[in-house]
Amino acid sequence: MAKPMLQIALDQTDLASAVTLAKSVAGYVDIIEVGTILAFAAGMEAVTTLRQNHPNHLLVCDLKTTDGGAILSRMAFDAGADWLTVSAAAHIATIEACKKVADELGREIQIEIYGNWTLDDAKAWRGLGIKQAIYHRSRDAELAGVGWSDDDLLRMRTLSDLGLELSITGGIVPQDIRLFEGIRAKAFIAGRALTGPKGQSNAQALRAEIDKYWS
Amino acid sequence: MAKPMLQIALDQTDLASAVTLAKSVAGYVDIIEVGTILAFAAGMEAVTTLRQNHPNHLLVCDLKTTDGGAILSRMAFDAGADWLTVSAAAHIATIEACKKVADELGREIQIEIYGNWTLDDAKAWRGLGIKQAIYHRSRDAELAGVGWSDDDLLRMRTLSDLGLELSITGGIVPQDIRLFEGIRAKAFIAGRALTGPKGQSNAQALRAEIDKYWS
Repeated sequence: MAKPMLQIALDQTDLASAVTLAKSVAGYVDIIEVGTILAFAAGMEAVTTLRQNHPNHLLVCDLKTTDGGAILSRMAFDAGADWLTVSAAAHIATIEACKKVADELGREIQIEIYGNWTLDDAKAWRGLGIKQAIYHRSRDAELAGVGWSDDDLLRMRTLSDLGLELSITGGIVPQDIRLFEGIRAKAFIAGRALTGPKGQSNAQALRAEIDKYWS
Repeated sequence: MAKPMLQIALDQTDLASAVTLAKSVAGYVDIIEVGTILAFAAGMEAVTTLRQNHPNHLLVCDLKTTDGGAILSRMAFDAGADWLTVSAAAHIATIEACKKVADELGREIQIEIYGNWTLDDAKAWRGLGIKQAIYHRSRDAELAGVGWSDDDLLRMRTLSDLGLELSITGGIVPQDIRLFEGIRAKAFIAGRALTGPKGQSNAQALRAEIDKYWS
């Protein structure tokens, strides 16, 4: 099972701050994410700018695409995104439209798990050939103090067993990493944990834990 | 039951085209919507520009907010939106965060129905004091030729009976209006139907049908 990568989520409300932050963390993350907040704040200029500044990083555009799949996916990929997030709540026709554009351009989509999804939904995503999903505690659930539950872990294992590689997010700290052992973890996504004076040492601590559980 | 309004959805991939289009339809619509595609293309500049150009219209920002509710709602309302869309797939804590900001600023949120929502979800929205929801055929479902079904109409009546005012969208044509009789319809939302050489006459035809079924 490949070693999970580290992903920085940029959720600033202005592009200049996000650009500065991306430069400060680029040396120790694998994936740069234009978060939904940044994308709504600055539009596709956020994607083109970060693509230009970081040509060798994987670039994720977190649109949580829910409708208008063909147009939004082409817009994000044309701006330079490698991966695009698509909401689990989207109609399967929307998900299929995004997948089609991704295939055409050699990119990937990630199903972002929100709402009341079912195992049948997950099988339908796999049926379309989708390889990735994002599993997280909601930012707001996190703020409300809701932790990683056995139920979360069971759901993640179910998705992983279907063959989906998971990017995992929601207040990830090094001590959490062991919880996800045995899961196809594609990346761990963090915002605040990877920035500031302790960003680099937190990244090292995360990678040290990752090394223990994935080879 | 108040008469439903007409709403133009702006889903252009560049702001200049959206600005031109909004000017051309402003005379015969009540509500201008910065659609998700436009918001992701141009960021909050789309909202500030349209607010400036159309100070007397209701302005909706269609972010389909799914997470980060407090930040996104403040961003959209500060930019000038009267109403903000929030995804039905969002965690209830996200929806509550949006509602709180809206209440503080005297604005409103609209629950945008996507994914596998339940009656209990809808009751929870009402429990937060939310008054509006958006019901639609997915743009992609519409493209796939899926029409308004009895099931759609039953779900709309259920939401309406709970006290939610519905904005209804998805290829609306004048002949459809009668289907929604008796439903608390806040607005009918259209894009292409309200633009182009036939935009104004289509608007008149929609209002004539509305006059038949709402007083």
